[in-house]
Amino acid sequence: MAATVAVDNLNPKVLKCEYAVRGEIVIHAQSACSNSCKLNQDLYLLMRSSIVTLGTHNLLVSNQLHSSGRYVNFVPAEFKVCSAGFLHGISQVLALCDHPDLLKKEEIKTLFSADSISRAKQILALIPGRATGAYSHSQGIKGLRDAIASGIASRDGFPANADDIFLTDGASPGVHLMMQLLIRNEKDGILVPIPQYPLYSASIALHGGSLVPYYLNESTGWGLEISDVKKQLEDARSRGIDVRALVVINPGNPTGQVLAEENQYDIVKFCKNEGLVLLADEVYQENIYADNKKFHSFKKIVRSLGYGEEDLPLVSYQSVSKGYYGECGKRGGYMEITGFSAPVREQIYKIASVNLCSNITGQILASLVMNPPKASDESYASYKAEKDGILASLARRAKALEVAFSKLEGITCNKAEGAMYLFPQICLPQKAIEAAKAANKAPDAFYALRLLESTGIVVVPGSGFGQVPGTWHFRCTILPQEEKIPAIISRFTVFHETFMAEYRD
Amino acid sequence: MAATVAVDNLNPKVLKCEYAVRGEIVIHAQSACSNSCKLNQDLYLLMRSSIVTLGTHNLLVSNQLHSSGRYVNFVPAEFKVCSAGFLHGISQVLALCDHPDLLKKEEIKTLFSADSISRAKQILALIPGRATGAYSHSQGIKGLRDAIASGIASRDGFPANADDIFLTDGASPGVHLMMQLLIRNEKDGILVPIPQYPLYSASIALHGGSLVPYYLNESTGWGLEISDVKKQLEDARSRGIDVRALVVINPGNPTGQVLAEENQYDIVKFCKNEGLVLLADEVYQENIYADNKKFHSFKKIVRSLGYGEEDLPLVSYQSVSKGYYGECGKRGGYMEITGFSAPVREQIYKIASVNLCSNITGQILASLVMNPPKASDESYASYKAEKDGILASLARRAKALEVAFSKLEGITCNKAEGAMYLFPQICLPQKAIEAAKAANKAPDAFYALRLLESTGIVVVPGSGFGQVPGTWHFRCTILPQEEKIPAIISRFTVFHETFMAEYRD
Repeated sequence: MAATVAVDNLNPKVLKCEYAVRGEIVIHAQSACSNSCKLNQDLYLLMRSSIVTLGTHNLLVSNQLHSSGRYVNFVPAEFKVCSAGFLHGISQVLALCDHPDLLKKEEIKTLFSADSISRAKQILALIPGRATGAYSHSQGIKGLRDAIASGIASRDGFPANADDIFLTDGASPGVHLMMQLLIRNEKDGILVPIPQYPLYSASIALHGGSLVPYYLNESTGWGLEISDVKKQLEDARSRGIDVRALVVINPGNPTGQVLAEENQYDIVKFCKNEGLVLLADEVYQENIYADNKKFHSFKKIVRSLGYGEEDLPLVSYQSVSKGYYGECGKRGGYMEITGFSAPVREQIYKIASVNLCSNITGQILASLVMNPPKASDESYASYKAEKDGILASLARRAKALEVAFSKLEGITCNKAEGAMYLFPQICLPQKAIEAAKAANKAPDAFYALRLLESTGIVVVPGSGFGQVPGTWHFRCTILPQEEKIPAIISRFTVFHETFMAEYRD
Repeated sequence: MAATVAVDNLNPKVLKCEYAVRGEIVIHAQSACSNSCKLNQDLYLLMRSSIVTLGTHNLLVSNQLHSSGRYVNFVPAEFKVCSAGFLHGISQVLALCDHPDLLKKEEIKTLFSADSISRAKQILALIPGRATGAYSHSQGIKGLRDAIASGIASRDGFPANADDIFLTDGASPGVHLMMQLLIRNEKDGILVPIPQYPLYSASIALHGGSLVPYYLNESTGWGLEISDVKKQLEDARSRGIDVRALVVINPGNPTGQVLAEENQYDIVKFCKNEGLVLLADEVYQENIYADNKKFHSFKKIVRSLGYGEEDLPLVSYQSVSKGYYGECGKRGGYMEITGFSAPVREQIYKIASVNLCSNITGQILASLVMNPPKASDESYASYKAEKDGILASLARRAKALEVAFSKLEGITCNKAEGAMYLFPQICLPQKAIEAAKAANKAPDAFYALRLLESTGIVVVPGSGFGQVPGTWHFRCTILPQEEKIPAIISRFTVFHETFMAEYRD
């Protein structure tokens, strides 16, 4: 009998799916970490101090953001805890919610801040039976959705409704859900920016649809040009593709741009005119570094145009994995859906219900990050200082890396206006491209692998995100600890010079 | 322009999917709860004291199990915390892991048990950077997988390997993953028991495969008969279906039976001979109530037969939502995969990686429940007493409900040997069947809705799980608080007698 299960009799959609951010380079780095005893001591030390060990960060780490599996670059060597503030408070609130018995004890007043205690009490009061270990409503706990809706309303200046919120285990399951809903077969297309976060290509492949690419314009700072989107849409339609939705990632991943408000108006009008669902990945909404840029949610843009429920189906994704909090291992997030008819919403609810509910800790976190301390709250000053400190540090790190990359031979690098990434272009010498071909690698993957082996630094090759054919890039997070950036830059520079010396044409 | 998104242009697989345990009856109950002010006071009180409010339980509740969205029946009115023990310790360990800073404080010694403190330290030492808020390896944190593998090995007496463990947000995502892997199109079939837990039918529908039913034999206590499975397999094959896998739920949901060891040997041999993947839903492995029954994992059965990696692809599912712990809102679980080739395993890893990782709190919980205190541990005696107390109480509740149902006119009820359910058959009068038809409901759904409206008690109609055509059932959990069972039985009995008086032929 033939093998029961073999690669050639698996679902071809699975085989087609690719996922670069956990792809070859990362697997190689992981394996180097776990086999570190086999490596020479120098590399091992570097591994421990400055690259991925997947799952290594903590947001409590004062005034720095962490790395992690997704932002695979560098990892803080130590675990430094700041003394107070909202971010520290997040973990206090979660601890109290996990073990509500603590709230009966006097001793907690010396261990937890008054704000954390009162937040935990408020949250537990929203949870039927105070039971953080029970299944919730499949959209998430109603009281937490109310809190999130209220946070959205304060952010946008337009009302939001708890019934529109679906709490999810991070943003990814919400993206899969919408792809599953919209894609019938390979004749259904989804417009996706290139470069893109590969969740989109992976999810479209897994659900058997067609990715319709539109290219972001690197020469205008990764601008989104409606004319190109329209051209791609028309081209896809001429090939018989029923284009159902447009994905916009704002701030951009991996490209780090922040859309201008005018551009967002054009996108919304375009989607309405063309009958497209707008899937707005807004998980980096807190991560804005450019002084002249501001985050505007697509929900706000839609409502500002006077569009109501009849005009545009819109899904806005948010996650607790980003921002200045970065609690990615907690897997919290939500999607806010507006502009869908009641029967379609019922189908969305049904799919959500098949997995019962998202994890309650993640639900609590989503409600916390959408409702940080207010100006009138006791902890506001420390929260504000902490948040501003983290975001300012991220901005400095982005700038330092951008400047450093731009100085290197053959590398050009756009500004990081937002998100957590730089996506420099690297003009590789022909000799390097040939060496890559001989090694059966994409040229940028070849470069990234050499970088990893020489320095312990992990970047993700641009080929995993998509790029204009013939151009090569890599994605680099801006998350290394600020004080380590000079050493990283110097190590990177030495590697790059050596690489170029070896392969220069 | 036509509506951008309407039910008639959605993915037909989504439309086809049904999910009864969060279906009409549950939605109706939810809506009654949240609109309780509109109900008469009596029903409102009842709602609060004895039915579903989704997400209302806590496992810490001494000597009782909770209800929840999934086990939709009855809900404890209050939240009683037991004083010590492993289950209490679970929430202590989670709180310490959420906020590791606590471990530096002397005061915790009066708030947390010594065991919890030492467990939390052990767990944090397994997590790179002690960062419980960071993404982990896509299979889950390696140290936690090691702990789970060691728990499996102690359970089975055969080795287990951390590389075979995939930690998941509850068991459901692991089921979807395997369906996604195996199902190419509607010509791919999956053998599923009827009655079944509707996750299976929903997942097969969502992935576009064919459910190949085999019927459990109610007259032999929901026995699984290989001859029937073989007949259904051959019938499906004769219709051109490529049957890829056999689902076994042991202990059974919704049917509560526990498979005999001999029967399990036959199932394993059958799968090997027929080239089927064995998908073993073993989430109720701790829930055994019959003195003459014992849980044997299929992994143990496979290895006891001397089968190795070449012989049988097997997936074993476990969850932190069941057992005596029931931490369903934490969404923890794992699948152990054995018997798959390296290239197939890579595809499984790739799909897992698209959602980055499961939530870390759930991962920690899965490692805890697979490694309860050992006989040599200080807390063993209290853990053992607590666990035995809960399981004994569940057994008494199952018995009380079984006896009560069996006394009712037209109802027959098999023993609950395991899991958390009874699945009584109800012989409905013709007049009731006609009234149901006039109301456009399945007869058992009609009965369940009347029950809910009259008593506030929620049961899930058998038609959501599948049943021999022309028979009617309902699923009832055994989770109501033990002291409330007499009142529930009496209320149920009054309803049933009134219903029968109204509809008796």
